[in-house]
Amino acid sequence: MNVGIIGGGQLARMLALAGYPLGLRFVVLDPAPDACAAQLCDHLQAAYDDPAALEELARRCDVITYEFENVSLTGVDKIAEVTAVYPSSRSLAVSRDRLREKTLFRELDIPTPQFVAIDSFADLENAPKLLGWPFLLKTRRFGYDGKGQYLLYNAGDLQPAWQALASQSLIGESFVPFQREISILAARRKNGETAFYPLSENQHQNGILHLSRCRPDDPQTKPAENLIQRLLETLDYVGVMALELFEVHGKLLANEMAPRVHNSGHWTIEGAETSQFENHLRAILDLPLGATEPVNYSAMVNFIGALPELADLLEQPGIHCHAYSKALRPGRKVGHATVRAPTEAALEARLNHLLKLLP
Amino acid sequence: MNVGIIGGGQLARMLALAGYPLGLRFVVLDPAPDACAAQLCDHLQAAYDDPAALEELARRCDVITYEFENVSLTGVDKIAEVTAVYPSSRSLAVSRDRLREKTLFRELDIPTPQFVAIDSFADLENAPKLLGWPFLLKTRRFGYDGKGQYLLYNAGDLQPAWQALASQSLIGESFVPFQREISILAARRKNGETAFYPLSENQHQNGILHLSRCRPDDPQTKPAENLIQRLLETLDYVGVMALELFEVHGKLLANEMAPRVHNSGHWTIEGAETSQFENHLRAILDLPLGATEPVNYSAMVNFIGALPELADLLEQPGIHCHAYSKALRPGRKVGHATVRAPTEAALEARLNHLLKLLP
Repeated sequence: MNVGIIGGGQLARMLALAGYPLGLRFVVLDPAPDACAAQLCDHLQAAYDDPAALEELARRCDVITYEFENVSLTGVDKIAEVTAVYPSSRSLAVSRDRLREKTLFRELDIPTPQFVAIDSFADLENAPKLLGWPFLLKTRRFGYDGKGQYLLYNAGDLQPAWQALASQSLIGESFVPFQREISILAARRKNGETAFYPLSENQHQNGILHLSRCRPDDPQTKPAENLIQRLLETLDYVGVMALELFEVHGKLLANEMAPRVHNSGHWTIEGAETSQFENHLRAILDLPLGATEPVNYSAMVNFIGALPELADLLEQPGIHCHAYSKALRPGRKVGHATVRAPTEAALEARLNHLLKLLP
Repeated sequence: MNVGIIGGGQLARMLALAGYPLGLRFVVLDPAPDACAAQLCDHLQAAYDDPAALEELARRCDVITYEFENVSLTGVDKIAEVTAVYPSSRSLAVSRDRLREKTLFRELDIPTPQFVAIDSFADLENAPKLLGWPFLLKTRRFGYDGKGQYLLYNAGDLQPAWQALASQSLIGESFVPFQREISILAARRKNGETAFYPLSENQHQNGILHLSRCRPDDPQTKPAENLIQRLLETLDYVGVMALELFEVHGKLLANEMAPRVHNSGHWTIEGAETSQFENHLRAILDLPLGATEPVNYSAMVNFIGALPELADLLEQPGIHCHAYSKALRPGRKVGHATVRAPTEAALEARLNHLLKLLP
């Protein structure tokens, strides 16, 4: 079986590493000559929406998936006529547009921060009446790792925020002083079979995910499963989905969903019986899903911009290195490590060691 | 860092799968156009002893290793002038020749079945005086999976055995009615740092490994570690080594060693904190070795000649599939599965399920 992946970054790379043991082969579509997944997959070097390349991908592959949301919808619809594409273009269309996404949350009674479409400067001036101060102005599309966002504290920020972002479609969102950020990942197969991972508790630095801890038996597990289940069913979803949530005084607010494997689920490679990468592949190939139970206690730390010395890293017990073989650039995710330990206390001790090694 | 591997079969494939997360890249040398490791590594398609290909491999790689013993010694010595090659050509020379291997065992006081060089038919006629009946006639080289062996029960077998094997250098070995077959795997780094895996208890079928169970806390652990330690030190060994042992009335007899990752250690991918593949790479790259502690209870079952239905396999809890993407042929190792479970009893139950799925 040949699996096509639109995008050849670290998510594609880890999908391939999880999929070779299932006997799968991989073709990635990525314009970068040094796309890190291309080291271990066949590589179609072309723009993500290049019609000829998409057609070739569809012809060569039994199923196609993608590693990010900003895939051409018309491209996906075109290849979906030839080959199965999962998650569906509807899931993609919803999740890549913050306004459509939050509107769907509202329709499904999934609590979410207050939001409003911003189509003009007048809309922006009116926004604080609904959202209060401070509030966030965000691009509806192409935002990731805190990019495409502006936090406004008072009326003096309206003009600069407008200047910074008004070239794109925008949304205003109330600013939520949350106590915790968590995410839930689930895999769903076409027949409705669904597997939920234990919750991830996440810490960000400068808008980029820094640390995710697996939280088995978290009290928010059932409420979070209930929320993501509504999305999975409504979208007749196939694949792994992530839903990011804020916990505010014990209540969950949905921040955003991702129709793909997710950085906050990287601990599942060592920390769950079946990784999110393998379960995504199983789901899109309509194979039985693997167990999602935790294996000991685990957490994940991202390497941003640089990697620790490999020898220092490997000297620490229970640390599993994942270098993406990407060129090092400030702010770029270039690797992560999973820390695993037999007890929660040992996990925290190992995590402390690891954090000291960060460059 | 670039790692070169002589041989592009499943061992090279699993080395690469373990090495990409360390940020390594791989070049395999293999004459087969469809070598299964070539799906995810750069591929030099040439004979294993092709001087130009070996030279290119040495030029492109920071370190070179191999996945089987029948590598050209002169080739290895040649490239070792340019690039590090581990394990060393001495380890290779000893382990690929049953007579040299057993002679080294004897020199190191490692108990082994009685043996004698067979250089003529007269030697063969004399052998039963030393070895008793039945005894084994084996080729000194190129034997694997029970190939190149003849079990002689009486004088009537001398002629047919000689006819079958006399074109090669031979060794006679006494037949050992053992109670158990076990193997021990160890990784050793240049500075002498050594890590031992828990013992594997092995079952063969038709001369081919069928099933290996991880046996933590086995009473033979210390004795087995003591035996392999002598080999590792004498050979100043670098990499993973396997030593196959027979248990006879509570005593261990060394059967053979392998200067490489070994089929009986495949359970380490899920069943040990660090797999044999990752530790082999760490050892040859002079990086700290990873912990070898077991992760829950595990066992490995080989798929010979055919694979079970993937959907049937993945439906079973705790089963991890490793398909090698090789053409299916009778007697050929085409994949394996690791079974992992939280208790020994659950492991045996899951193993029973798995064995029922074998084609």
